[in-house]
Amino acid sequence: MATTEAITTGEGQEAAALLERTRETVNPELRRTVESLPGSMRRVAMYHFGWEQADGTPAAGNAGKAIRPALVLAAAQALRGQDGGAADEAVRAAVAVELAHNFTLLHDDVIDKDARRRGRATAWTVFGIPDAIITGDAMMALALRLLAQDPHPAAAAASARLSSCVIELCAGQQADCAFEVRPHVSLDECLAMATAKTGALLGCACALGALYAGAGPDEVDAMDAFGREAGLAFQLIDDLIGIWGDPGHTGKPAGADLIARKKSLPVVAALTSGTAAGEELAALYAGPMTGDDVHRAAEAVDRAGGRDWAQAHAADRMGRAVQQLSRAVPDLGAAGGLLALAEFVTRRTR
Amino acid sequence: MATTEAITTGEGQEAAALLERTRETVNPELRRTVESLPGSMRRVAMYHFGWEQADGTPAAGNAGKAIRPALVLAAAQALRGQDGGAADEAVRAAVAVELAHNFTLLHDDVIDKDARRRGRATAWTVFGIPDAIITGDAMMALALRLLAQDPHPAAAAASARLSSCVIELCAGQQADCAFEVRPHVSLDECLAMATAKTGALLGCACALGALYAGAGPDEVDAMDAFGREAGLAFQLIDDLIGIWGDPGHTGKPAGADLIARKKSLPVVAALTSGTAAGEELAALYAGPMTGDDVHRAAEAVDRAGGRDWAQAHAADRMGRAVQQLSRAVPDLGAAGGLLALAEFVTRRTR
Repeated sequence: MATTEAITTGEGQEAAALLERTRETVNPELRRTVESLPGSMRRVAMYHFGWEQADGTPAAGNAGKAIRPALVLAAAQALRGQDGGAADEAVRAAVAVELAHNFTLLHDDVIDKDARRRGRATAWTVFGIPDAIITGDAMMALALRLLAQDPHPAAAAASARLSSCVIELCAGQQADCAFEVRPHVSLDECLAMATAKTGALLGCACALGALYAGAGPDEVDAMDAFGREAGLAFQLIDDLIGIWGDPGHTGKPAGADLIARKKSLPVVAALTSGTAAGEELAALYAGPMTGDDVHRAAEAVDRAGGRDWAQAHAADRMGRAVQQLSRAVPDLGAAGGLLALAEFVTRRTR
Repeated sequence: MATTEAITTGEGQEAAALLERTRETVNPELRRTVESLPGSMRRVAMYHFGWEQADGTPAAGNAGKAIRPALVLAAAQALRGQDGGAADEAVRAAVAVELAHNFTLLHDDVIDKDARRRGRATAWTVFGIPDAIITGDAMMALALRLLAQDPHPAAAAASARLSSCVIELCAGQQADCAFEVRPHVSLDECLAMATAKTGALLGCACALGALYAGAGPDEVDAMDAFGREAGLAFQLIDDLIGIWGDPGHTGKPAGADLIARKKSLPVVAALTSGTAAGEELAALYAGPMTGDDVHRAAEAVDRAGGRDWAQAHAADRMGRAVQQLSRAVPDLGAAGGLLALAEFVTRRTR
């Protein structure tokens, strides 16, 4: 994977190793669970995770970076110290979170009409919309069944938290759709949407890890807040990549979000800046984006202060994330894995 | 509701009273739960349940007959006798089952492109496909959250059972879609599909009632089997109504399934009968169904033995249902509510 390659140098090494270890621990159980799906839902799901080609033959596999399962395991570890048992016990919760994440990807791709995901055609373009909806539904049920069948004492609380989180993810996706057709969206609305759509599941992953480590309500909430803040920082950086591209060429090409006239956070910051550049951007966003428009729009976001704001706000959110983390794990030295992951997801443009 | 009216005479009276009582018990909690949905998902869900018009103003409300919640409560009651507490405790489970049922309706209407449901325009035609998918997702999460937050000792087992059931419902819906475009479908395949799509949730409803009454694994399985067999009988009768209409005019108009060239159970029985009438039907099903074709197709199903088979098989399944029920409740006198409900759902053409 290109991403792994890009971060095996320098500070990213610890996160890369952690993600690699997570995939080794989680993927066998994840795959076993997905393979338990009946009929052709199994086939759609195996394709979606990159384990099979569309015709059912084996594929090399790119099931994603496993950031969310890594957060579950790292949170459990941070709260139980060197006791490896906590992370082992939390593998089911890690798989459940990854299944819930992939359920949202299957449905979001249908809703957003996205044709590509992880370098391949999206499931709905290959198997049709009905099969993609149905397989997503079954994947969410699979996630919650995994927790319901887990004898671990934290399983019921984890299940309640994950299903609440799914409702929040749905609200986030719904708001995202609504914003696309609304003439005006405030920055606060946009931040609330990003928190629901991206922050909630990262927070939930950390909270589940804490629950499985036997943490109390305050620690669990602090872990959730850590994941949410880091998740929002992640979204801000992802939005910057959607405009200026990723120096490591591991994500979307430069300008992708502008061509789609997406109301991403830096764009909304620019649109609501009250500057002349913000008005230029609004005029460009009023029509289809052709030729030089993309370049001009990116420049307008920059001049309107959207780029600086997003970078500063991402740093601010990371600061808040660390503050929340220190509430759950006062000796931050024990939370090295979580800090490495948070830095990894928010450091891709530097 | 027309349905209630049609059955308040004669033998249906007990079931009608039971369904009415169920709606009184379950609907307030169901509505409270639905109202907890954030943003415009709440609005889509309130419309779907008939509690609001599309513009958000209150509506008279037709949230459905409540057969599945009634099965949950009646199963709990049958296993705990006159101890009313069992049914009270099971209200959350009844609400969860009804939410899961309505999640499948929201998604199935999108997938099947159905425009009408309970006498009104379906949610996706009013709010768009994205909102219908997202609200269905949130409704399923709501169902499983309700169980995850329930301190009742049976809640985890109920949650595992309901999520397994959702996977089976998905498999049933997937098979149903696949059959529509396949040239040949065997009767066994069709029965398996109907069991997954309809029987599974009726079985799950009964099993959850049993779990909340503190029943052991054998009784829970027997209750599940009772609901499945009764559910298949229900589907057979529903399929007959889809061809010859409902004497009470409470369901689909006569011929509706034939016009849609649906591979319902009596149709597949006729198509696979090896008779000349079966071949006539196959020829009619090969093209669009116009004018007199619908009448001719109904006659062909009849002459090929599809009608008789469906009626006999429904009676057979009801016999098996009662047998299974007697395994869970040896004194069938205590299971009057369940028997009345099973008769109600399978007696609409007599």
